[in-house]
Amino acid sequence: MTQPHPDLGELRYEGKAKRVYATPDPTVYIVEYKDDATAFNGVKKAQIGGKGAINNAITAAIYPQLEAAGIPTHFIEKLSEREQRVKAVEIVPVEVIVRNVAAGSFSKRLNIEEGTLLPRPVVEYCYKSDALGDPLINTDTAISLGWATETELTRIRELALQVRDFLTPFFLKRGIKLIDFKLEFGKLADGTIVLADEISPDTCRFWDAETNEKMDKDRFRRDLGGVEDAYAEMLKRVTQGV
Amino acid sequence: MTQPHPDLGELRYEGKAKRVYATPDPTVYIVEYKDDATAFNGVKKAQIGGKGAINNAITAAIYPQLEAAGIPTHFIEKLSEREQRVKAVEIVPVEVIVRNVAAGSFSKRLNIEEGTLLPRPVVEYCYKSDALGDPLINTDTAISLGWATETELTRIRELALQVRDFLTPFFLKRGIKLIDFKLEFGKLADGTIVLADEISPDTCRFWDAETNEKMDKDRFRRDLGGVEDAYAEMLKRVTQGV
Ligand SMILES: Nc1ncnc2c1ncn2[C@@H]1O[C@H](COP(=O)(O)OP(=O)(O)O)[C@@H](O)[C@H]1O
Ligand SMILES: Nc1ncnc2c1ncn2[C@@H]1O[C@H](COP(=O)(O)OP(=O)(O)O)[C@@H](O)[C@H]1O
Ligand SMILES: [Mg+2]
Ligand SMILES: [Mg+2]
Repeated sequence: MTQPHPDLGELRYEGKAKRVYATPDPTVYIVEYKDDATAFNGVKKAQIGGKGAINNAITAAIYPQLEAAGIPTHFIEKLSEREQRVKAVEIVPVEVIVRNVAAGSFSKRLNIEEGTLLPRPVVEYCYKSDALGDPLINTDTAISLGWATETELTRIRELALQVRDFLTPFFLKRGIKLIDFKLEFGKLADGTIVLADEISPDTCRFWDAETNEKMDKDRFRRDLGGVEDAYAEMLKRVTQGV
Repeated sequence: MTQPHPDLGELRYEGKAKRVYATPDPTVYIVEYKDDATAFNGVKKAQIGGKGAINNAITAAIYPQLEAAGIPTHFIEKLSEREQRVKAVEIVPVEVIVRNVAAGSFSKRLNIEEGTLLPRPVVEYCYKSDALGDPLINTDTAISLGWATETELTRIRELALQVRDFLTPFFLKRGIKLIDFKLEFGKLADGTIVLADEISPDTCRFWDAETNEKMDKDRFRRDLGGVEDAYAEMLKRVTQGV
């Protein structure tokens, strides 16, 4: 085991895949990536060997490139195998799903075959609530119930589509079709919206561009085997030169 | 039984609550309102005595007032107890739900107590598909899957909120809180979007303003009894002078 980082303060939040710790600087958190995997709203649980380190590394590779592309993020720096330093944000309790290709709950709900290309990307919003199973909502609902303002949601949508426009060719160059992904946004103390959380095989659907093989958490959800290998391969593709 | 109207042509569509007939004029349909009631996507079925006549009369009373308020509708005229003449439209397969107060599926999905006032009206969209159970969608999905264009959806939302702004005080003056309602829109041959279908206790939640007693199809859905009386009372309130 590596030593915990000396700045590590009190545990602020333990989620399904990460722990968030305070630091001496109240505007900074340390996020620790765990190997824990859950699916179907926590019903299915397991460990995926190496996942924490891989997701930390993938996120740490991608977020600076998003910043360079003009998308503000919470990322500060990778600290260790499993830890990264991030800006402390107030998470907007609205998960944002961007879809290039039909899959998962979208395919099921609308009976559209997985793999069907969407002529236009679809942005969906879910209320971030484990108790309710992250139900699908829309922006009206988020505004009316006070989860975000109209201005915040307009900015969030704009940033989500910018992330999509960056990531889709980024992954395609690496032999990966970006099918869909989930983002979380947060607010800095001054209200600025930044991309928070992670981008990893836990939060994206990645299909090999040649074989359509799934290279993401669906291998775990659907018991396809080779989970660790797929995660490791994704890290290799993300960090390789192209 | 009353005689069918002499213009009644071939049956074009039989739905759960109405039949749609061609007429000698291809731009005109006759809609016949049935007493059939269904709930939970057709799982629960019964007849509600007088419902067809009442919903025909309520819709025939309201649609001309919406027209007068500047909202284009499919309504032409009431022909008989159960029949009305309407403009033939191509129905947009997106049902529009407008909510003033939390109830029904919204309350359940988000665990918000029925009766909670929404600080801002919420417009929701469902894909009109009995086979899929009218799943919740958003405008991105409707656009991407070709169910409506962005321009059409912008107009539909505008009209839906105009309907709400007309109906909410209309019912309140008659001692009724308009909790939520479902609308369907259609396109005339020239593409104009008009309000189609019906507005009735089948498609709205009405609560008595004094007692919060339900005056709508929830009496049937939830086995509260007094269904016929509630529908008859709603017709009385809609057609009474205020
Ligand atoms: N920069 C940040 N500041 C505060 N909280 C964050 C930040 N980035 C992510 N989070 C939150 O930390 C938690 C990350 O842990 P995770 O295991 O993914 O949680 P969950 O089980 O809620 O998905 C999430 O609730 C996420 O919203
Ligand atoms: N003006 C119109 N032109 C064509 N179709 C219409 C018009 N108004 C309503 N409809 C359609 O007619 C059917 C009405 O019957 P209904 O019993 O309510 O059907 P459903 O079971 O589909 O809700 C609906 O499918 C509705 O979309
Ligand atoms: Mg998470
Ligand atoms: Mg109907």
